[in-house]
Amino acid sequence: MSTLSTQVVSKLTRDLEPPSEVWRARARAHLDTLTKPLGSLGRLEDLAAQFVSIRREKIAEPINSAVYVFAADHGVTAEGVSAYPREVTYQMVLNFLRKGAAVNVLATLHRAELHVVDVGVDADFDALPGLLHHKVAKGTRNMMHGPAMLDEQLAQAIEVGVNIAESAVTAGRTMIAIGEMGIGNTTSASAIACALTGAAPAAATGRGTGLNSDAHLRKVSVVGAVLRKHFEGTSRPAPLEILRCVGGLEIAAMMGMILASAAHKLVIVIDGFISTAAAALAVAIAPNVHGYLIAGHQSEEPGHKVLLDHLKLAPVLMLNMRLGEGTGAVLAMPIVEAAVALYTQMATFTSAGVSEAS
Amino acid sequence: MSTLSTQVVSKLTRDLEPPSEVWRARARAHLDTLTKPLGSLGRLEDLAAQFVSIRREKIAEPINSAVYVFAADHGVTAEGVSAYPREVTYQMVLNFLRKGAAVNVLATLHRAELHVVDVGVDADFDALPGLLHHKVAKGTRNMMHGPAMLDEQLAQAIEVGVNIAESAVTAGRTMIAIGEMGIGNTTSASAIACALTGAAPAAATGRGTGLNSDAHLRKVSVVGAVLRKHFEGTSRPAPLEILRCVGGLEIAAMMGMILASAAHKLVIVIDGFISTAAAALAVAIAPNVHGYLIAGHQSEEPGHKVLLDHLKLAPVLMLNMRLGEGTGAVLAMPIVEAAVALYTQMATFTSAGVSEAS
Repeated sequence: MSTLSTQVVSKLTRDLEPPSEVWRARARAHLDTLTKPLGSLGRLEDLAAQFVSIRREKIAEPINSAVYVFAADHGVTAEGVSAYPREVTYQMVLNFLRKGAAVNVLATLHRAELHVVDVGVDADFDALPGLLHHKVAKGTRNMMHGPAMLDEQLAQAIEVGVNIAESAVTAGRTMIAIGEMGIGNTTSASAIACALTGAAPAAATGRGTGLNSDAHLRKVSVVGAVLRKHFEGTSRPAPLEILRCVGGLEIAAMMGMILASAAHKLVIVIDGFISTAAAALAVAIAPNVHGYLIAGHQSEEPGHKVLLDHLKLAPVLMLNMRLGEGTGAVLAMPIVEAAVALYTQMATFTSAGVSEAS
Repeated sequence: MSTLSTQVVSKLTRDLEPPSEVWRARARAHLDTLTKPLGSLGRLEDLAAQFVSIRREKIAEPINSAVYVFAADHGVTAEGVSAYPREVTYQMVLNFLRKGAAVNVLATLHRAELHVVDVGVDADFDALPGLLHHKVAKGTRNMMHGPAMLDEQLAQAIEVGVNIAESAVTAGRTMIAIGEMGIGNTTSASAIACALTGAAPAAATGRGTGLNSDAHLRKVSVVGAVLRKHFEGTSRPAPLEILRCVGGLEIAAMMGMILASAAHKLVIVIDGFISTAAAALAVAIAPNVHGYLIAGHQSEEPGHKVLLDHLKLAPVLMLNMRLGEGTGAVLAMPIVEAAVALYTQMATFTSAGVSEAS
């Protein structure tokens, strides 16, 4: 059972309030005074109203955004579930630090500061500068043979995310994107999606970074096997048990960061399948988290749609991406920024002397 | 018949080449060397390859973007086809110049210079600074009673767009967004969509800025009536005849700008229903224009989807907007910029020392 991790999480969720419906209604009323046909900004009006419901009187402050990429390895890679070798997690962390990866380019372009967190990469980074060193273990255990983590590891990984959320608050962040890197972690996300929603393994298991058909079938059967091993006979496994048995260290840290960021009233832009799996676990633990979440995009992974539907979140973008790293979340940030800028900067019918509709 | 306008257009289309398929193939090959799973940037890879096919060796230059808003009035407003009074065209032009409209906010946020062009607003702007003065007439005639324009007016309005495209090239623009303002212009766009695609008036006529059901039915019947009046018995009316009879001065200018911008190898981001109607006319005249177009978004107007399907263009964004002014096009610009930045700035597997897929 998850005793330590339960304690960590209950501290976080005790005072977690939903966004303010009063402020959301005020935002809607203000949107209707702006020089545009009523409702004509569509989804941007929803995003602006959500932002106001979260940030309240602080809406006029400039948005201060950052993206956090959590990296870890997965024991289940021993089952041949990824097109890329396990060492790519380590190599990509180095690529992030040298600014060569997709998320580096997008974060620079869209002015979000990038932070890379080692929660469980199977490599010694020594004191590599630029990396946030929070290694809990050198990857999870192979969930085909036992729980991916010990309860202490799970608690520690969640606390990594909590501490990073707190440093984000201290740094004045108002909007954060949550991404990851971890060869094998779509297998973990598929198992989480099935355990949370009841979806069949075949419906929530995709080709990840590009499996061929045979390897994809093997991955589906691995997901089925780990679900039977850990949850057979359990009708609704508890979120922390799902995370401990079939999760990942980076997923646990992301979930911790999401819970703590919601508690601190930050706007949280989630990314792809793995990031959304962490968010779905956070919502399962604390339903009030829901109102703080913006789904940056919908990826090509079939399990991502399963989770977005389960969470009733509509993605901002649908660009057929399947890269992770936080790329889809960072790409959605200028859209969210636009929504807030329109809200705070547009003229009203009265101020502009424009006639209203009859 | 459209004699003068035919001459204007044939000068433009004579040397209009499609984007380079050689450069597109080179772009695809380069994308496959970058540190990401093959194809995992989805639509962004298509956008990058399209940008390279248009800009060729100039791909590394910083993107220099601008948005052009063409404003004009419509005689058909006499039929009660808009929720807003006709003077809103004039009032919104003033709002653009005072930086209070949605497109101002978005253009500033996304670093696109905004230009507002009076092609046919029913008001005297005198020498109002900041406005590009190219008034051809004080609005079109009511197309219920006769052609919206004279051939000379059509030719002149097209030339306004051509001249503005040339000044964009001189100013070093590489990517332009095309937007509009004109009370009554969704009625014109619906008639154009039906005449070009054969769609029924009810399928291509929406609520515009927010008509109630009765007014919407009236608008559908106006569209049907103008189509019968001008094109009854004509199986495929010529694009310039469609434009002259049921178009608008701003739509003619937008079409001229699109044709000339494609001839000058600019990347053209189109906006909503009216902007896409202008693009569809340009493609009907010169099919090579197609490769220069990016559909910024799909609006709520049903006719917009009709035209995007007809053009086989997939929108970058779907945010349920229906505002015009170029807002959807400008909002898509950071996505296009992101695609190009990823293409030019990401590390390759070799340069980063990352293992490739097995």
